[in-house]
Amino acid sequence: MSPRLRRALPILDWGAHYTAATFASDGLAALIVTIMLIPQSLAYALLAGLPAEMGLYASVLPLVAYAIFGTSCTLAVGPVAVVSLMTAAALGDMALGSPAEQAAAAVTLAFLSGLILLAMGIFRLGFFANFLSHPVIAGFITASGLLIATSQARHVLGVPASGGTLVEMLISLAAHLPAVHPPTLAIGLGAIAFLFWVRRGLKPLLVSRGVAPGLADIATKAGPVAAVAVTTALCYAFRLDTQGVRGVGEIPRGLPPLTLPQFAPSVWRDLIGAAFLISIIGFVESVSVAQTLAAKRRQRIRPDQELIGLGAANVAAALSGGYPVTGGFARSVVNFDAGAETPAAGAFTAVGIALAALFLTPLLEFLPIATLAATIIVAVLSLVDFRILKTTWTYDRADFAAVLATILLTLGIGVETGVSAGVILSVALHLYKTSKPHIAEVGRIPGTEHFRNIRRHDVLTTPEVLAIRVDESLYFANARFLEDYVLDRIAGDCAIRHVVLMCPAVNEIDTSALETLGELNRRLAEGGIALHLSEVKGPVMDRLQKSHLLRDLTGQVFLSQYAAMTALGGAPAEPA
Amino acid sequence: MSPRLRRALPILDWGAHYTAATFASDGLAALIVTIMLIPQSLAYALLAGLPAEMGLYASVLPLVAYAIFGTSCTLAVGPVAVVSLMTAAALGDMALGSPAEQAAAAVTLAFLSGLILLAMGIFRLGFFANFLSHPVIAGFITASGLLIATSQARHVLGVPASGGTLVEMLISLAAHLPAVHPPTLAIGLGAIAFLFWVRRGLKPLLVSRGVAPGLADIATKAGPVAAVAVTTALCYAFRLDTQGVRGVGEIPRGLPPLTLPQFAPSVWRDLIGAAFLISIIGFVESVSVAQTLAAKRRQRIRPDQELIGLGAANVAAALSGGYPVTGGFARSVVNFDAGAETPAAGAFTAVGIALAALFLTPLLEFLPIATLAATIIVAVLSLVDFRILKTTWTYDRADFAAVLATILLTLGIGVETGVSAGVILSVALHLYKTSKPHIAEVGRIPGTEHFRNIRRHDVLTTPEVLAIRVDESLYFANARFLEDYVLDRIAGDCAIRHVVLMCPAVNEIDTSALETLGELNRRLAEGGIALHLSEVKGPVMDRLQKSHLLRDLTGQVFLSQYAAMTALGGAPAEPA
Repeated sequence: MSPRLRRALPILDWGAHYTAATFASDGLAALIVTIMLIPQSLAYALLAGLPAEMGLYASVLPLVAYAIFGTSCTLAVGPVAVVSLMTAAALGDMALGSPAEQAAAAVTLAFLSGLILLAMGIFRLGFFANFLSHPVIAGFITASGLLIATSQARHVLGVPASGGTLVEMLISLAAHLPAVHPPTLAIGLGAIAFLFWVRRGLKPLLVSRGVAPGLADIATKAGPVAAVAVTTALCYAFRLDTQGVRGVGEIPRGLPPLTLPQFAPSVWRDLIGAAFLISIIGFVESVSVAQTLAAKRRQRIRPDQELIGLGAANVAAALSGGYPVTGGFARSVVNFDAGAETPAAGAFTAVGIALAALFLTPLLEFLPIATLAATIIVAVLSLVDFRILKTTWTYDRADFAAVLATILLTLGIGVETGVSAGVILSVALHLYKTSKPHIAEVGRIPGTEHFRNIRRHDVLTTPEVLAIRVDESLYFANARFLEDYVLDRIAGDCAIRHVVLMCPAVNEIDTSALETLGELNRRLAEGGIALHLSEVKGPVMDRLQKSHLLRDLTGQVFLSQYAAMTALGGAPAEPA
Repeated sequence: MSPRLRRALPILDWGAHYTAATFASDGLAALIVTIMLIPQSLAYALLAGLPAEMGLYASVLPLVAYAIFGTSCTLAVGPVAVVSLMTAAALGDMALGSPAEQAAAAVTLAFLSGLILLAMGIFRLGFFANFLSHPVIAGFITASGLLIATSQARHVLGVPASGGTLVEMLISLAAHLPAVHPPTLAIGLGAIAFLFWVRRGLKPLLVSRGVAPGLADIATKAGPVAAVAVTTALCYAFRLDTQGVRGVGEIPRGLPPLTLPQFAPSVWRDLIGAAFLISIIGFVESVSVAQTLAAKRRQRIRPDQELIGLGAANVAAALSGGYPVTGGFARSVVNFDAGAETPAAGAFTAVGIALAALFLTPLLEFLPIATLAATIIVAVLSLVDFRILKTTWTYDRADFAAVLATILLTLGIGVETGVSAGVILSVALHLYKTSKPHIAEVGRIPGTEHFRNIRRHDVLTTPEVLAIRVDESLYFANARFLEDYVLDRIAGDCAIRHVVLMCPAVNEIDTSALETLGELNRRLAEGGIALHLSEVKGPVMDRLQKSHLLRDLTGQVFLSQYAAMTALGGAPAEPA
């Protein structure tokens, strides 16, 4: 078997050593994840504005596809909160009429997202994800969590509030407050209270009763299933649906259907931007979870192969009536804690969900939507964390600006605008910072061959020589800055006859900077000043030799700043 | 008078020392520029798809406004080729019906462009122009020159060809070839041949006849005026207009009218993108001309004040029936060579153009459009220069990719797409390059305290210590790369107990990189490996001290790599 094939199909690697013991571990983990995933998949489908069964469909074939192509042994793929919110926003922008159109568009979105991820994986474009800075992601997740929690509040209140932004939703909720439906509210608040108690209080209680901490941890993850079971039973027993408590309703019973995405160019045009953002956000989220978990076991994942795995999962979602999926944080941690050892655990989870779709759906008819909303609210509120604002305010104001813009625009305009603005702003601020690099005038420390900043050290200088060190690569964004600096500096000092550019921190000189240096050389020559370079790095020098700069240079290239100063008359200035 | 006011109104500075001698110099320069500007302004207005008189209007008040607010003593502001082409593209995109609507939209475009430039000046956002790399600008100018020359070819051929892209125009020209109008073609080709001869052959001829080279230079700039005068006279004398040679037609006689921009939000929305690109391109072009000329006299310009000057000029254009203006290259060089000493020369040029608008317009009725097209073609063909492709191919493939994309998309889709793609691609490629920084494993050179790359030097290392040097600032685009590098490295080497990150080339650590370092520290700790830093720069250390990293760090921060290796057991490895 070729190593290339083994890299492309990780299943061949781990599948070859699969044992009964691994099967037992994976099977147990899959059982626990399945129990957790059933309510989550239904809830997130509703969050995406889609029929509940699409959440189940998105939790079968995509998991199998990831198990074949993915490299993480513990990542649990499926519908997740943020991607569901982004799906809802993308479908909302299209102003589609019928639920069938919505479902078709969601399938197409998964397909496009899958193609984008596959293309990024094949062409090794995973570095795109690096353009999302950590603070921007943190701000985006926090703002998304708030948006999601607010959007679900209407289901807990039992009112038909709506709105695209946080403010619109809050206003609509306030307007509908008089119409709150008390039985729905009771179920919703009860579920929220129960779920918070499970998160905070159940584990200590179980541990104090002698349950092993690991087992207690897993038990707390079953909270949503318990809430679902109890409230469904209540609703069924007291026929609360006849009193206005909305249930999930009839869910078609059966395996995921075979579906095809739409191929109309206009639909693709409408969805491609959202598909791109969903792919990037989904990938970043998924890879960071996968890396964190892999590192705990000293395993490694391959990000480019992860793109293929997630791409295949999304294409599988599109072919089986699902919607965009990615690796979920909470679910993967449960999978990890429950002892999953290979991606097969994901495939076994798929079997579990398929069985649920076949046999459990009749039981879910009376499942109150308020309960699902409660599980979403409790899950996403744990994502809301404004500390990133404080951290960045203290540490880096540029990052703070990017986070603030991301949060405000996500809440005020929408998820796509928010995350795009965050990325653009981080990139722009990074370019801005490097566009004004630190430039130090340097002189020689007496008795040594070292050159240091004249503002910080007591150094020797020569009036005829301006020696400056640039602490940044020279490229288009800062080329002009250096030129301005030097020209300003010599305009105020008639004694200067030599300018020496000390380049130990210059890792690159691009074409723009090369032209600027040529221009600077010419302008200095017009004033009778020679331009020299010193301590140019090897790779930079190699490329300069292909250019005209070294030929035209009025001065020389010195191996060290000391050699430059010796040659230009700086060294003799040493006091006896 | 406050220094602040003097900075905001440069005219107060140079105006205070204005003498009769300066007046004489400026006046002469203004006369020569006026003669050059009359045919240019008419031609560029036609290129922009606007009535010829708008070119004259754009050459009066804008010049006065720049004289008050601008900082360059020799920049000649007015309509220029590339901005006229971009104006034509912006108006073309709007699919406006009547010429009056076109004119109103052009006025609005100038107003928006003026507001954007003023805002950028007030908020000191001139650094935005730095995002345009030299190669992208060169590629864009070359492609624009080709587009402009092709678009003007129809006037020389006398056919109604049209098309938005180079290929469309060439096809349309070919389709119209059988309908070429011979008299128009004769005038157009004659003018082109004459203008090329003036550029190439007139100066040597004059100099050989004993004319001073400076004077000969200026005489060659009068070529277009001569062509205009002769062909207009021919057209009038032989009534060529009755034989189908299109003239400029009746131009309204009088001073520029008072106009107001449109304030409809829909119009602003349609034009704002184009206005932004026109502002940036116009600013970059203008500033580079102004800087080049200022440097020749050891003067300086202030780029942020230039934004104000150009912004005021464009607002003035909007208020007086003009269209977007900026500093022109050829014209400014003429102004400089002719001896302009202060911005007053521009104001005097404005008087000249105003007089032309008042008294010369009746003479222009018979001016053949073919002649104007010939002056444009000869002017822009000098801008076309594909050498940038060769230069960047040899020197920097990333720049080559950006130039190629800019040229192909400008020619194939349009000016806005072309220049946007160039900017996005340069930024993305820069981020890509810095996202995979050079990382060297280092060891100590025997007998010294210096540490060098183990691949290039014969150095001492210790199996328990992994010492690596990163040659780049750590920020969001490369944070993950470092983490991957270190984790991959330790995964294959069980002996490692310490990782030392040598940071002399790290000029910044942003929040993302800080978090990655924290994460790396945690993960290494899980494997029983300590993370140390060495040679951290002062400003970086100052900021790290505000973070949690130093508190959580399992290792230490060493002042030098030598100190680190001594403490961690690397130093004793020295052979006796």
